[in-house]
Amino acid sequence: MHMTIRIGILGYGNLGRGVECAVKQNKDMELAAVFTRRDPASLQILSQNVPVYSIQDMLQHKDDIDVLIICGGSATDLPVQTPEYVKYFNVIDSFDTHAKIPEHFEHVDKAAKESGRIGIISVGWDPGMFSLSRVYANAILPDGTDYTFWGKGVSQGHSDAIRRIEGVKDARQYTIPVPSSLEAVRSGETPELTTRQKHTRECFAVPEEGADLARIEKEIKEMPNYFADYDTTVHFISQEELDREHSGIPHGGFVIRSGKTGWDTEHRHIIEYSLKLDSNPEFTASVLAAYARAAYRLNQEGISGCKTVFDIAPAYLCPQTNEQLRASML
Amino acid sequence: MHMTIRIGILGYGNLGRGVECAVKQNKDMELAAVFTRRDPASLQILSQNVPVYSIQDMLQHKDDIDVLIICGGSATDLPVQTPEYVKYFNVIDSFDTHAKIPEHFEHVDKAAKESGRIGIISVGWDPGMFSLSRVYANAILPDGTDYTFWGKGVSQGHSDAIRRIEGVKDARQYTIPVPSSLEAVRSGETPELTTRQKHTRECFAVPEEGADLARIEKEIKEMPNYFADYDTTVHFISQEELDREHSGIPHGGFVIRSGKTGWDTEHRHIIEYSLKLDSNPEFTASVLAAYARAAYRLNQEGISGCKTVFDIAPAYLCPQTNEQLRASML
Repeated sequence: MHMTIRIGILGYGNLGRGVECAVKQNKDMELAAVFTRRDPASLQILSQNVPVYSIQDMLQHKDDIDVLIICGGSATDLPVQTPEYVKYFNVIDSFDTHAKIPEHFEHVDKAAKESGRIGIISVGWDPGMFSLSRVYANAILPDGTDYTFWGKGVSQGHSDAIRRIEGVKDARQYTIPVPSSLEAVRSGETPELTTRQKHTRECFAVPEEGADLARIEKEIKEMPNYFADYDTTVHFISQEELDREHSGIPHGGFVIRSGKTGWDTEHRHIIEYSLKLDSNPEFTASVLAAYARAAYRLNQEGISGCKTVFDIAPAYLCPQTNEQLRASML
Repeated sequence: MHMTIRIGILGYGNLGRGVECAVKQNKDMELAAVFTRRDPASLQILSQNVPVYSIQDMLQHKDDIDVLIICGGSATDLPVQTPEYVKYFNVIDSFDTHAKIPEHFEHVDKAAKESGRIGIISVGWDPGMFSLSRVYANAILPDGTDYTFWGKGVSQGHSDAIRRIEGVKDARQYTIPVPSSLEAVRSGETPELTTRQKHTRECFAVPEEGADLARIEKEIKEMPNYFADYDTTVHFISQEELDREHSGIPHGGFVIRSGKTGWDTEHRHIIEYSLKLDSNPEFTASVLAAYARAAYRLNQEGISGCKTVFDIAPAYLCPQTNEQLRASML
């Protein structure tokens, strides 16, 4: 057992860099290594004196890492990497393809039970903190209605979809909750909201020179799944303005449960959890770091297998002892 | 093992009645008995066909109760009752004297470990859900500032304090967060707020006939601890108006953590958890019921001792299986 929890990062994009920052903020953790698919020599990381290794050499370092935080994408990286690396490491991922979570869980659980390691999947804010809010609120108020609003924030997937349109050089898309719907829910109404009533989409696109703006706007607004079901606004701006005003990756949202209690369900209660984030990847990374602490401790207690945020008692996330938590936070 | 979790209620005031309502809403629970210090024959409860027993006969019924929810007061009831009854029952309480939680925990833990039962203490919303929000938010954002605002809601203690003033027949006091302070915190400022800057107090008092209103108002506003440190408003109204407009027991509040991430802590994040409750006791009771489910399950797994909300994984609160939770709530 070391004095600090030795964290490894696999994948050094926005999320990996966020984990690097989060580890720096947690005094009981140290960054032991970064693993990459790129040429390690080409990778400049923020930390001094932390080695960067090729993903191909990972197993050589398995005894130097207490918890590996896997920072890949949910589409193709995590379904392969998490079940594979939990054979050798305690791992955390932020797998966010909601429909495939049960399948991912099974794969990770099987491998983790065989290796005696722990794998915590789908950690972040949605899935993650938003899921926790839903679970707590549903357990407390069985008779109620759930609402989740996302934003205001950048959707990477929608920004990419705009960029794929002919004549678009660059783009940024914001998802925005409809204020009147949010207020209706908060006030205790329990409306059935359509997709259009919940969120609007605001797009900032940089057109190529001479591009047909009317055609681009039409293509965006009519794009199925991404925009057709929403009220969408399109602004054409310069690359300079996009870089200057829209380079951040903010996000956030609201999870609200509106429920009733009382012998004749005569009393209304509103439970609301909200996030307002300057940096989506850094916040997600901060949640990953807290659950890395839990993974380490649970595994020290001899616990193995796949876990989610639902399976982990909150005290495991905290650097304080249980006595300190009871005295200061309860 | 029974098909449903058999709940006992000790103490039938507002909170006990709230638990009775909550049990009705949870299909995997049944109310097995109510225990009272009063003459059981004098007690009219809401449920049909549920026995009311004297507190003195409790031990005769220990095999009929899976979890006893103790609905007494924190000042004198719970410090005695919780360590005593955990000798015979799995118990839950809502002990809320923050400074004495460590001592209460030790007493309950010792008795519970000897009996092999479980005792979950300080369950409700503060302590309880607010504490959980603080713990999660602190684990995620180690570099940050916590704010808790209470209200708008009725403070029973402050209402009682006004009623003790000579010439006051009845009274109701509301604690109200200062909107500008709440907004400042939400906007990302991290002000140091004085007591006066966080909450105002609004009082509705029914004077006795011929009472000196100016003297009463002065006594309220200058009362140490309760009102002297706050901006306090006093309204004199009739008993009829008090009964008509102020008979509810609403409450709520806001737990906000404002924190920073990033290599140079350049990004700001706001985590906010808020409650807006029509009935303070019914909501508290609903939290107690969810933790009663956890107590039952944990004890079935052979776990004993004293626990708090920090020690219990969220999945234990839910009637769904872990598979169902992962598929529908994550």
